[in-house]
Amino acid sequence: MNNVYISAYGLTKFRRSNDSIYLLAFEAIRDLINRFNIDKDSIDGIIVSTTSTEPYIANILADMLSLKPKISYKHEQLCSSGTSAIASAYAHIKAGLCNNILLIGVDKYDTIGKRLDWDIYRGEFKDPVYWAALYAKAHMKSFNTTKEQLALITVKNRKNALNNSYAYFQKPVDINDVLNSKTIVEPIKLLECSYVCDGAAAVLLTNKESSIKINNIGTYSIGASISSIRDLRSIESTYMAARIAYNNANINANKIDVAEIHDAFTICELLAYEDLGFVEKGRGGRFVEDIIDNKANVMINPRGGILGTGHPIGATGVAQIIGILNAIEENKYGLVHNMSAAGTTSNVIIMERI
Amino acid sequence: MNNVYISAYGLTKFRRSNDSIYLLAFEAIRDLINRFNIDKDSIDGIIVSTTSTEPYIANILADMLSLKPKISYKHEQLCSSGTSAIASAYAHIKAGLCNNILLIGVDKYDTIGKRLDWDIYRGEFKDPVYWAALYAKAHMKSFNTTKEQLALITVKNRKNALNNSYAYFQKPVDINDVLNSKTIVEPIKLLECSYVCDGAAAVLLTNKESSIKINNIGTYSIGASISSIRDLRSIESTYMAARIAYNNANINANKIDVAEIHDAFTICELLAYEDLGFVEKGRGGRFVEDIIDNKANVMINPRGGILGTGHPIGATGVAQIIGILNAIEENKYGLVHNMSAAGTTSNVIIMERI
Repeated sequence: MNNVYISAYGLTKFRRSNDSIYLLAFEAIRDLINRFNIDKDSIDGIIVSTTSTEPYIANILADMLSLKPKISYKHEQLCSSGTSAIASAYAHIKAGLCNNILLIGVDKYDTIGKRLDWDIYRGEFKDPVYWAALYAKAHMKSFNTTKEQLALITVKNRKNALNNSYAYFQKPVDINDVLNSKTIVEPIKLLECSYVCDGAAAVLLTNKESSIKINNIGTYSIGASISSIRDLRSIESTYMAARIAYNNANINANKIDVAEIHDAFTICELLAYEDLGFVEKGRGGRFVEDIIDNKANVMINPRGGILGTGHPIGATGVAQIIGILNAIEENKYGLVHNMSAAGTTSNVIIMERI
Repeated sequence: MNNVYISAYGLTKFRRSNDSIYLLAFEAIRDLINRFNIDKDSIDGIIVSTTSTEPYIANILADMLSLKPKISYKHEQLCSSGTSAIASAYAHIKAGLCNNILLIGVDKYDTIGKRLDWDIYRGEFKDPVYWAALYAKAHMKSFNTTKEQLALITVKNRKNALNNSYAYFQKPVDINDVLNSKTIVEPIKLLECSYVCDGAAAVLLTNKESSIKINNIGTYSIGASISSIRDLRSIESTYMAARIAYNNANINANKIDVAEIHDAFTICELLAYEDLGFVEKGRGGRFVEDIIDNKANVMINPRGGILGTGHPIGATGVAQIIGILNAIEENKYGLVHNMSAAGTTSNVIIMERI
């Protein structure tokens, strides 16, 4: 089967605006085409990752571009739509259904995708922050993880975002800013929550050899009901998706040089350190400190994570991929971790610069 | 690469009801599981084809079934969502991302998917019947196709639907019923238009050998703007999708024994006879008469087509697949033709009973 590469990308500034979803998407596409001098007529597939309710977006964008693609559809899996669509684009190319897929992630700040309105029979936790609070309490109780360690995740990611001109947040915060921000649900503070904003991110997946290769993909969903979450100190879907990806790639976590982690809330990033295998279970709090002290042997969220860049839901997974594209060095591996709905679904993409 | 088979199916009665999209979907899934005695724990992928705006449907259904799938997302391409999702499920299995995908097509009668609300810059034809009228007028003028020939398509498909207990329409109509029904847009009569209703259809795609194989898939989109439709006497996307599928399968139209054709309007079926290669361009009107006189060597819409069964939009392509499953004989080929938005997109699936 063909290998699949990512040969181009485009982004919008992440923002809050009155711009339509089409304008946002087109801005990222134009950036991709101009930045990499892409012959748009080579594009034979277009997939749109979004939680927008607008129908037929992929086909409307194809028309705006005067394309006649073989594959054209809208793809939705809440906050992990972007990497779920990456897996699908990869599959379509591997299966020979097309050669060059333009994948656009796009969403608006007011999308219905930011609420878990269907989350009725698992406690009416319609806002994901309730789940973050449960996970945080469990980790703090079991492993003596501190509020300060969690807050440092925001400090670190907001700092990294200062080097990313596309990020929503462009001001640093210190630990006291985080700890003194409003409590949303104890122990989660306002500055530990990602901000849902407007944005678009586009990548071109292709079977034509290029320097960034998709090495392997691991995806996994657990049941979303409270009873299926057996241990609040771990995200099972992340653990499983990572093992699938590592096994398929025949590598382990030590091989990963740089990772984009789904830090929708600080506790999500901390749990992912452990569930992705960068550090053993329970050591996530100390690992934050190690990262800040430059003692960790993996770079985490160099583009600023979701806490630093903002969270245009359908675009996030695609923007994470671009984060790795820009950070990964030759002969090294990068990893993207993207998840949805309190860990119901996790997708892990292993990339390689060749 | 693995071959991909369809090993099970389930359906709901097509109807107008107050039933939720979840209830409809689950009814089709239960039918599939019971009818084919499926071990649900073997399912490692779930894709939902729908124009519903409900987010995260695939994951909610996975949870209702206590599944932990690797692949789980919502797929939308308007009226051709069903076969577009078939192509994606096929690709995920071919690419080795999972082994057994449950694909559910489902929609409600009042979905936003039945209007072309984005269709602003191509003449504000927000109801697809305007396009049908343009196509019908062009064909009648060029090829002396008659209103009676078009009306016979409804008569034939409503008759076939009498043998399909899942069909919305269960009463025959004669040619005078069609010709005397209300004119919607000259020359299209009410009984030449499909009825958007509630319904769900489910299939299980698998890499485990089974009697029905997906032989090949052709998909194509043209630009949706009026200027990109060069000739109203043909659906370019259908012509191209069929050629891609035939070429990949190394067969021609003569090899097809049975076809499900996208008869959202009578003229759509007539154009497809020609664009799929069953008869030469301009002979579609006479071909209707041949089919009715049992002189055609291909069976068309044995389940009753969309005109006979109703049109639950996201379910239609999947129900067409089931129509072929039930009609195809050993060592023969069947074809599904499904399209969207006045032929903007067409998908052609070639199936084979082995």
